Amino acid sequence: MYIDINCDMGESFGHFVIGQDEEMMKWITSANLACGFHAGDPSTIYQRVQLAKKYKVAVGAHPSLPDLVGFGRREMKLSPDQLYCDLIYQIGAVSGFARMAGLSLQHVKVHGALYNMANRDPMIAETIVNAISDFDPNLIVFGLSDGELLRMAEKKGLRIAREFFADRTYMDDGSLTPRNHKDALIDDPVLAAERVVRLIQERKVIALSGKEIPMEAETVCIHGDGPNALFFAMQIKQALEKEGIVLKSLIDQ
Amino acid sequence: MYIDINCDMGESFGHFVIGQDEEMMKWITSANLACGFHAGDPSTIYQRVQLAKKYKVAVGAHPSLPDLVGFGRREMKLSPDQLYCDLIYQIGAVSGFARMAGLSLQHVKVHGALYNMANRDPMIAETIVNAISDFDPNLIVFGLSDGELLRMAEKKGLRIAREFFADRTYMDDGSLTPRNHKDALIDDPVLAAERVVRLIQERKVIALSGKEIPMEAETVCIHGDGPNALFFAMQIKQALEKEGIVLKSLIDQ
Amino acid sequence: MYIDINCDMGESFGHFVIGQDEEMMKWITSANLACGFHAGDPSTIYQRVQLAKKYKVAVGAHPSLPDLVGFGRREMKLSPDQLYCDLIYQIGAVSGFARMAGLSLQHVKVHGALYNMANRDPMIAETIVNAISDFDPNLIVFGLSDGELLRMAEKKGLRIAREFFADRTYMDDGSLTPRNHKDALIDDPVLAAERVVRLIQERKVIALSGKEIPMEAETVCIHGDGPNALFFAMQIKQALEKEGIVLKSLIDQ
Amino acid sequence: MYIDINCDMGESFGHFVIGQDEEMMKWITSANLACGFHAGDPSTIYQRVQLAKKYKVAVGAHPSLPDLVGFGRREMKLSPDQLYCDLIYQIGAVSGFARMAGLSLQHVKVHGALYNMANRDPMIAETIVNAISDFDPNLIVFGLSDGELLRMAEKKGLRIAREFFADRTYMDDGSLTPRNHKDALIDDPVLAAERVVRLIQERKVIALSGKEIPMEAETVCIHGDGPNALFFAMQIKQALEKEGIVLKSLIDQ
Repeated sequence: MYIDINCDMGESFGHFVIGQDEEMMKWITSANLACGFHAGDPSTIYQRVQLAKKYKVAVGAHPSLPDLVGFGRREMKLSPDQLYCDLIYQIGAVSGFARMAGLSLQHVKVHGALYNMANRDPMIAETIVNAISDFDPNLIVFGLSDGELLRMAEKKGLRIAREFFADRTYMDDGSLTPRNHKDALIDDPVLAAERVVRLIQERKVIALSGKEIPMEAETVCIHGDGPNALFFAMQIKQALEKEGIVLKSLIDQ
Repeated sequence: MYIDINCDMGESFGHFVIGQDEEMMKWITSANLACGFHAGDPSTIYQRVQLAKKYKVAVGAHPSLPDLVGFGRREMKLSPDQLYCDLIYQIGAVSGFARMAGLSLQHVKVHGALYNMANRDPMIAETIVNAISDFDPNLIVFGLSDGELLRMAEKKGLRIAREFFADRTYMDDGSLTPRNHKDALIDDPVLAAERVVRLIQERKVIALSGKEIPMEAETVCIHGDGPNALFFAMQIKQALEKEGIVLKSLIDQ
Repeated sequence: MYIDINCDMGESFGHFVIGQDEEMMKWITSANLACGFHAGDPSTIYQRVQLAKKYKVAVGAHPSLPDLVGFGRREMKLSPDQLYCDLIYQIGAVSGFARMAGLSLQHVKVHGALYNMANRDPMIAETIVNAISDFDPNLIVFGLSDGELLRMAEKKGLRIAREFFADRTYMDDGSLTPRNHKDALIDDPVLAAERVVRLIQERKVIALSGKEIPMEAETVCIHGDGPNALFFAMQIKQALEKEGIVLKSLIDQ
Repeated sequence: MYIDINCDMGESFGHFVIGQDEEMMKWITSANLACGFHAGDPSTIYQRVQLAKKYKVAVGAHPSLPDLVGFGRREMKLSPDQLYCDLIYQIGAVSGFARMAGLSLQHVKVHGALYNMANRDPMIAETIVNAISDFDPNLIVFGLSDGELLRMAEKKGLRIAREFFADRTYMDDGSLTPRNHKDALIDDPVLAAERVVRLIQERKVIALSGKEIPMEAETVCIHGDGPNALFFAMQIKQALEKEGIVLKSLIDQ
């Protein structure tokens, strides 16, 4: 049994540092690299690609809306053409660093507000899928399991990876508990690790209501910032390995 | 006899428009595409690459220091690592658009203040050459004929293209007359065209002093903005063709 | 009879030039100065304030969403706190230049997407009005006559100025004909000037349907870019003066 | 005996957090507020001004070269006009927030590379002094005791405050030991506090050579980032108070 663990990386910007990327690289198999629009200046991208190579972590682009001060978390109304070109620009830039390190981009995971917009708006989803597919049809599209983005990606024949969020609870319909709900987040790494193990072994997750619901995922998303991110990541890796589950990036599966 | 004519392109930024790029594409053979740091947002890059394809113009990257408000014309002290990564980022971004249009990047011409810095500072020249060579050793380096950049590029085994400036006068030592000199610029397109013809046929140029000096160039730089840029470009093309000189990009020679 | 004529000014950014501001200053009485977020770098603001002083034009701030590449024309979801602070920052910056020239800011007119959002969303309108009022309760709020922004501004006791658009047609309910309608724009300066005269003399405008509708306005908005902006502005000024209508900024009325 | 303690504040940018500003406000008397060009988005400026008010800390502007990704630490060649306008813009923006909180700007301390350039280049120093003086001649200019900036500021009749760096060593001529020297920094808060006390009581500092040299300062600069910044600040405050030295901002002296 295999699973991929992905984490956002390179979300520093010049002197502004976010995350503990080198430490985090030890516990994951896929790195989503910020591309400069919400974070990730060129020097940061370069260094993170080198780290990914060192720790044998697969690299993907993590493009965003052009909103550095808002960290890509504010919805913006871009025209399809603008969005398409903004994605090509970002994926192209990160792709250059990857290629120079002898790596291929494995995947694209869109960031922040764009992630949410892509999951509910078919036109935005289509624009993103077109950009990814036109850039390189071998790129794997990361996204929410029941969202418009992955629906569109499958329709276009792209390989997809459904994300499971290790630190989030789920509703009975399989959607994420909204962030403003008091029980939206799982703080306990042991519990989170148990949930990931169950997901992989049984393809199930226990919803907030206590009900056991079916869940499919090819990649588990963990977060790299926050005070106990490293401990969280380590717990999950250890819990998985104890169960004989192998951590592998998707291109290696 | 062949000559390449290059021009800066895609120096618009969103709603801010500079140049008459589509018209200009008809008179040139190589387009230096702004990469987003001094001008050239993603949508502009996309459109200019499409235009270059339509008019069979070779494309190159025209990377800059990160200074949008200063249009890349103000010197900045970047560390070699920062400069290297800023270049990879920009070349990578433009390269993605080119590849998607079925084109390969032909060349890199650095922009503005960086152009000047590269010509006089060996360390900056070396950083630029390393970035270009590491990205793709087939890229042709455009630059000033007697500057540090081309010296370094040749040393590293890269193909170079020496630029002749059609609208500038030269000193006896082959250097450009400084811009603040009253006779630095040539406004008359007929005279400019004559100078280009002589350069190609005789490998000579008449310096400001009236003296005939030797001059070698593989590409002629013309400017795309200014009120009579199009007329200037057209005159040069016609004068060359009248003399049987063929306009060809460097990858086609 | 008095009328104010306002125009967006200072919408250049560094090397990127938009408009013919000095020429335009001769035909208007209020200048809406871009504040740096969609256009208007510090040097441009400085120069435009000096021009306004020279031509005795009242100055106002023209703040925007933070979106330079989109020229402030793309809707963004800012939190009320972010929007409030973005406005204070921009108004403060322009205010400093005005004060140094011995001028007071007369008004605030929000730009682009924010203008539209303010007219339809009471919460955004309230945030804008709070920012203006907290900065300086003597500032006049420019806006659409039947929009949320002016409704909120009046409620808070701020002086308002309803805008009439000289180059736009109106629907029977007094709203602007949407821009995508083929007859949304009025190209003929003579016709536009006639409409402005009628507005001032009769407080009426002829809607697209041919119906005469009531219309109130304290300021007429004209545009500074486009090929015949100057001719348009001149026509309006001359038509008004011929009718004995005096062009005066609001602080001079 | 009085002394002012200043610290850079508001050097976060949106989601990117630097420093522990609220904690730091407890130990200082003057806050140098980043103005948006190297750090300090509008929401951050707003919040820091509120904190300064809460902790009765005087506020000043901390303007920078326009280089967010380089944190204002890279030298750039601006024209005097550009620099002048960039300063007015930044001081104006911060000034608006201060005024709205019922505070007046006490001082201006230029940031990073501009601080160094101002100390050695008379033309840059003059431009800065002109901008400050034109904006508000009551502003106090913070700077290096023997630099061009304070020399020019005094010449123009502005009040100055010479800075002593609590965590830096000095050379025999009173200049700072260059940062690349192994003993440039003082890590020990107790030693640093002793040096500040001696400076105030005896107007002397012990240079790196062991020699006692004269030193004058009206304000002590401490740093707000780094792991033990708070402890450092607390030590200095306590050491000073133990000696009966009163911490007071300059406008309160």
